[in-house]
Amino acid sequence: MNRREFGLNLLLGVPAVASLISQVKAQTKLRVNGERLNLHLKELAEFGKTPEGGTSRVAYSDADLQAREYAMRLMREARLDVSIDAAGNIIGQRAGTNASLKPLMIGSHIDSVPAGGSYDGQVGSMGAIEVAQTLAENNVKLKHPLEVIIFQNEEGGTTGSAAISRGLTEKVLDQTTNSKKTIREGIKFIGGNPDKLAEAVRKKGDLAGYVELHIEQGGILAQEKINIGVVEGIVSVNWWDVTIEGFANHAGTTPMNQRHDALLAAAKYIEAVNRIVTSIPGRQVGTVGKIQAFPGAYNVIPGKVLTSLGLRDLDAEKVKLMFEKIQAEVRQIEASTGTKFEFKQVNSSKPALTDKRFQSIIGDSAKELGLTTKLLPSGAGHDAQEIADICPIGMIFVPSRDGISHSPREFSEPADITNGANVLLHTLLKLDATV
Amino acid sequence: MNRREFGLNLLLGVPAVASLISQVKAQTKLRVNGERLNLHLKELAEFGKTPEGGTSRVAYSDADLQAREYAMRLMREARLDVSIDAAGNIIGQRAGTNASLKPLMIGSHIDSVPAGGSYDGQVGSMGAIEVAQTLAENNVKLKHPLEVIIFQNEEGGTTGSAAISRGLTEKVLDQTTNSKKTIREGIKFIGGNPDKLAEAVRKKGDLAGYVELHIEQGGILAQEKINIGVVEGIVSVNWWDVTIEGFANHAGTTPMNQRHDALLAAAKYIEAVNRIVTSIPGRQVGTVGKIQAFPGAYNVIPGKVLTSLGLRDLDAEKVKLMFEKIQAEVRQIEASTGTKFEFKQVNSSKPALTDKRFQSIIGDSAKELGLTTKLLPSGAGHDAQEIADICPIGMIFVPSRDGISHSPREFSEPADITNGANVLLHTLLKLDATV
Repeated sequence: MNRREFGLNLLLGVPAVASLISQVKAQTKLRVNGERLNLHLKELAEFGKTPEGGTSRVAYSDADLQAREYAMRLMREARLDVSIDAAGNIIGQRAGTNASLKPLMIGSHIDSVPAGGSYDGQVGSMGAIEVAQTLAENNVKLKHPLEVIIFQNEEGGTTGSAAISRGLTEKVLDQTTNSKKTIREGIKFIGGNPDKLAEAVRKKGDLAGYVELHIEQGGILAQEKINIGVVEGIVSVNWWDVTIEGFANHAGTTPMNQRHDALLAAAKYIEAVNRIVTSIPGRQVGTVGKIQAFPGAYNVIPGKVLTSLGLRDLDAEKVKLMFEKIQAEVRQIEASTGTKFEFKQVNSSKPALTDKRFQSIIGDSAKELGLTTKLLPSGAGHDAQEIADICPIGMIFVPSRDGISHSPREFSEPADITNGANVLLHTLLKLDATV
Repeated sequence: MNRREFGLNLLLGVPAVASLISQVKAQTKLRVNGERLNLHLKELAEFGKTPEGGTSRVAYSDADLQAREYAMRLMREARLDVSIDAAGNIIGQRAGTNASLKPLMIGSHIDSVPAGGSYDGQVGSMGAIEVAQTLAENNVKLKHPLEVIIFQNEEGGTTGSAAISRGLTEKVLDQTTNSKKTIREGIKFIGGNPDKLAEAVRKKGDLAGYVELHIEQGGILAQEKINIGVVEGIVSVNWWDVTIEGFANHAGTTPMNQRHDALLAAAKYIEAVNRIVTSIPGRQVGTVGKIQAFPGAYNVIPGKVLTSLGLRDLDAEKVKLMFEKIQAEVRQIEASTGTKFEFKQVNSSKPALTDKRFQSIIGDSAKELGLTTKLLPSGAGHDAQEIADICPIGMIFVPSRDGISHSPREFSEPADITNGANVLLHTLLKLDATV
């Protein structure tokens, strides 16, 4: 008996404390069934399986519907009360012992990109159900109500989580998705009700917290051989369309010093983006992914180039700084190549930071399980970034082999997945005790 | 009477020398009718005129056929014997006074690129007819037979001149052109006979020489305010398809130092091509005109880039040197970006040098007309480069405003065009006297 236990004895009486201590000790030893979890992932991967060994299960497809049925069956087996909200999200509820507390939510998504992999979203979804199953099997009661959620259409724009955190606009509902259905049609197809979307919206404070387990989708954990990534936040994503105007002319007759070569300007710009982004300390990324030269012939100096810019960081100020440095360099490129650049921002999401307490609890849970951890940003978007608007969030990453994602070659080791689910389990237990 | 005239008097007798001298003096004063020449160019531009003020008259089109009829009418007015050879070239012949001499040939082409200008080829064609007209009007007899030629389908691959210098292969005849007709169909359409192409071929020595007047298509003469370009030769044109293999990955989750960015490699390559080409003294040019990135999304690090390389110079050895320097730099880019380059040559033409005597005669003719000259290479291909295989050639350039060509904005000053035709006239007279 340590000093704390002695104090508790004074407060609660010896028998109650003994029961509490034994309960805590039992909970510390609690583990998910990793074999079952990885089997569920394998079974889930049958829905929309591709010849390349990946998964093509876009939201609102038949494969998506079948996978959702499968997930709801597992939820029921985990003794969750399963329902579909008006937005089409699957929610498995479990009552808490303290009726005055707001629910803790865990989950992810099971829709995939076209020709994607079998881990993105799926690990967190099956992991959350496995946590609920483990709690049920071990008769562990939580003070907080628990909600295990499978958000709909994450890959098509975090539709399900946005429907909860801020609602969906008519414009969003009219968007056509990869399933060929509009989002409105898709919501009906999966059992939601697009006419009652207001019922799906949660207000700030309606949830005690949200934790999402996910594959890293990057190569940091795998390369550094670290078990668990403690996510600092989801980066701000910023995209620009970039137009470079030069002057098209005959590639044979125009001397080198009389050219206004838009592609040479583009080359200097692409090199500058890379140099500027890598010259600042930190984990920011910058990418030029698109390019088209006009007229695009062996024989003609390109007169126009359409290209792009993508900048991501946890810190919106750093994104601004990088953009300004790129602009300054672009002014020099314009002068040296006789061209004109134009930037038009086409996407901008604000960073979503995870809660510092949640970070600590995830880190502590991992360490108690004997796992190594690393704080890192999420470069990809997640449902968690939407939910961050209404409650504190945490995210747990497990390693992705070679950092490959959105590909049939996406893979995470079964042992890593089991580790992630155990960290999710113990994070949930600790949060239940502290928030 | 100078010493030379005195000597001639002794040799030929006084009356014959007086006649010769007065003839030479008359020839020195001979000038083309610049007003008529520029009117003919204006009339020619009606065939295939575009709303943008240019000319779209691809070979074997109705506009091409009409323009050819117009040119043949002008040739007849210039007292030329007009025929169409088996390859479809228009040839206007004028007998010489010495039956043992081979013909001197002058001319160019009147087909255009799609949506092109009204000067490329057309200045040299109308200029050559104007020279013949001037000779006829002034009863100037040449020792050599004269052939004024309008080559067919220059823009589609110097088809007419290749048919004369080396013949056309079945593969070439089956090529579909911008007119939608194959070259075989096109030759029939314009009055040639694809079954008798052997008749169009000329052997080495069949011609005494060929001189072509042409617009510069570059901006050197205009910028330096020089009247006449004396062409040193037509450059070697070399094109490569370049494939860069990297690895496509998520632009948000892949750290900067774990990327194999094929577009970053392409940017370094494009910059290197420009740097290497401009770091060597001379007038060589190097151009990257094509580029495509895969998959080509804001969100994905390009895994593959298809791009190009174009190198041109009068000296094939210098082209080889530039290519080797580019290859050496590419090895470094591969290492620093984790990518792999592949070069596949898709076009290679050998340089065609003009005859040094022809260069001198063109230069002397221009100077006697009070015109400034500059020696320069032709960066673009011309029919003259084909004819260089069978006889000595010369080329005369006139300035192109702003160096613009293959565009409705292509323009040369009427006075410059008249100058060019006068240089062609006097070059022809001097060649007639010396070769």
